[in-house]
Amino acid sequence: MAPETGYVVGADIGGTSLRLALAGMDGNVLAKWKVSTAGIRDPQVVVRLIHEGVEDLLKQNFLPLSVLRAVAAGAPGVTDVDAGIVIATSYLMGWRNVPLRALLEARLGVPVAIENDVNTAAIAEGKIGAAKGIRDFVFLAVGTGIGAGIVLNGRLFHGMNWSAGEIGYMLVPGTSVSPVKTGEPGALESLVGGEGIKAQWQSLWSANRTKLPKDLVATQIFDHALTGEPLARTVLRKSAETLAYAIYNLAVVLNCPLFVLGGTVGMHPALWEATQEVLAHRDKRVQPKLLRSTLGPDAQVNGAIHLAIDTAVSRALSS
Amino acid sequence: MAPETGYVVGADIGGTSLRLALAGMDGNVLAKWKVSTAGIRDPQVVVRLIHEGVEDLLKQNFLPLSVLRAVAAGAPGVTDVDAGIVIATSYLMGWRNVPLRALLEARLGVPVAIENDVNTAAIAEGKIGAAKGIRDFVFLAVGTGIGAGIVLNGRLFHGMNWSAGEIGYMLVPGTSVSPVKTGEPGALESLVGGEGIKAQWQSLWSANRTKLPKDLVATQIFDHALTGEPLARTVLRKSAETLAYAIYNLAVVLNCPLFVLGGTVGMHPALWEATQEVLAHRDKRVQPKLLRSTLGPDAQVNGAIHLAIDTAVSRALSS
Repeated sequence: MAPETGYVVGADIGGTSLRLALAGMDGNVLAKWKVSTAGIRDPQVVVRLIHEGVEDLLKQNFLPLSVLRAVAAGAPGVTDVDAGIVIATSYLMGWRNVPLRALLEARLGVPVAIENDVNTAAIAEGKIGAAKGIRDFVFLAVGTGIGAGIVLNGRLFHGMNWSAGEIGYMLVPGTSVSPVKTGEPGALESLVGGEGIKAQWQSLWSANRTKLPKDLVATQIFDHALTGEPLARTVLRKSAETLAYAIYNLAVVLNCPLFVLGGTVGMHPALWEATQEVLAHRDKRVQPKLLRSTLGPDAQVNGAIHLAIDTAVSRALSS
Repeated sequence: MAPETGYVVGADIGGTSLRLALAGMDGNVLAKWKVSTAGIRDPQVVVRLIHEGVEDLLKQNFLPLSVLRAVAAGAPGVTDVDAGIVIATSYLMGWRNVPLRALLEARLGVPVAIENDVNTAAIAEGKIGAAKGIRDFVFLAVGTGIGAGIVLNGRLFHGMNWSAGEIGYMLVPGTSVSPVKTGEPGALESLVGGEGIKAQWQSLWSANRTKLPKDLVATQIFDHALTGEPLARTVLRKSAETLAYAIYNLAVVLNCPLFVLGGTVGMHPALWEATQEVLAHRDKRVQPKLLRSTLGPDAQVNGAIHLAIDTAVSRALSS
C-alpha cells in the first residue's frame, strides 16, 4: 500500500467507556464509535468490543477490512509499549500483565500498538493540540486521579519500568506523608484528584458555612467558586496551590517550559486560572506556561490515531 | 593521533578550589593539581589558572604540550553545553553568560568541553562509580546547596534551558512555601543543604536541650547523631525525611531505580542510612536503591576527564 493510502483506528479504553475513531493516514477523523464498559473487566471482552467497533466503523464508511493498516489503543494503566503488555491498571479494571497487543493483533490481523492513555493524550496535544510543535512539555490529566504524560526531546518519556509520570503519588506541602497502601490513591491525587476535591469539600462543609449541598462533585464546586461562593473558593484555592506546587516541582526537575492541563477536573477554567495565579507569584526564574488542553475528551483517541499512523508507516518501512 | 594515544585534562571549578587531573585516554589518572580560588571571581583569572595547571601537570610528567588532546571543565552553575557558555553561577562567583569554552580553547589550543559540575560528577558515577552500567539514575549532590545530575537512557538530561535537576527548589512536606527571592537558596536546600541543617540545629538549640555547642556544621551534627545525641538525632531525622520525600518525588516522576548520594553532606553515612529507612517504609511500589558515591570529592574531576576523552574521540572522528 502507498504510504498515504489506507486507514487506521485509534481506541481509548476507559473504566466507563470504550471510544474508537476511524481516520485517514493524514489523521483526519472520519467517524467515531463509543460503547459503555461499565462493569466490564475481562480483557477478552474489551478486545471483542474493539473488534466490533472497528468493523462497525469500516462498514459505516463502506470500506473493506483490507484498507485497515493499523490500530492503536490507549489503556488506563502502566503499559510496556515494547512488549505490548498492560502491566497493571487501577483496581477498577484490575488488569495484570495483559498481552493486549498480541490479543488485538490476533483478532484484527493488522499491526497494533498500545500505550498508556495519559501518554496517548500527550501525543495528541503535541501533534495537533495545545503543545503543537513544542519539544519538551508535560500533559497533566486531572480526573478522578492525576497522571502526567512527559514529552522530552519530542518523544514520550516512559521511565525504567514504564511508570514515569505517576505524579498522583507526589509529596508537596499540605499532602499527607503517611505511607501509601497498595491500591489506595496517592498523596497528591487525594487532595486534587476529583475524589480528593470532593473530600476536601465534605470535610469543610457544614450547614452554617454554606447554603450549597454537601454532595457536590469537583467541577460543580469549581463552578460555584467562579460565582464567588466563599467555601467553594477555599477549596479551589487549596486545590490550585497543591497543583501549582506539583507543577513547580516538575518544572524544576525537568526544566520544562509548558504544561497542558487536561481531564474533566483539569480542564475547568477556575482551576486553570487559580493555579496560574499561584505559579506567577512563586519564583521569577521558574515560570512555566500553563495551557488548557485544546482537544479535551478527544485527546486520548486522537493520540491513539497518531500512534496507529506511526505504526502503519514504520511497518511499511521495515517490510 | 591514534585513538588510544595522547592525554586529557579534567578540571573542576569550585568556589573554594580549582582541581585538575591529567589522564590517559583510558581514563587512568596520572597526576592531580589543586589551587585555591577563594576570593577569585574573574573568569579570565580562572582560565589563566587552568592554563597554569595544565602546563604544570604536563611538565611534572615530562610530557610536551602536543600530547594534550582535549580538556573538559565542570562549572558550578547553569551551563549551556552546546554553546560552551556558563549561563549563571551562584552569587559567590557571580558569573553571567561566560563563554568559558571559547576562552579555554583560545588559551589552550585544544578542543574543550564544559559542563555543570553536578553533571560531571554524575558522568563519573555512571562510568566508574556507584552507578556504573546503570541506564537511568540520579546523582544527588548535597553540599551547601542541593543539585541533581539526571541520567536517562545513559545520557545526561539537561532540560530545555540547561537547568534540569535544580532540585534545591523542590517543595515537599515541611518546606517553606514562601515565594523564592532571587539569589536566595531554594526551599529544599534551606532545610537539607549544609547551611539548612546548621540552621535547623541553631533554631532547636538551647543550653537546656544539649551539651553540644550551638556552632556545629552539618557533618558534625550527623556525627553526634550517630553517637545517639538526642537533639542531633532530631535534626538528622528531619533532614532524612525531607531528603527522602525529594528522592521519592524524583523516583515517581522519572521512574528512576537508582539514586547516588554525593557531596560532603550527602556522603555522610548517618544521612544515607536514615534516608533509606524513611524510603523503605513509604511505598512498596516505589523503592529506589540509594547508594553513596564511591568517588567522593574526586567525582567532578573524574567526570571531566571522561568528558574530555569523549571530546577528543569525537573530534578525531569528525576531522
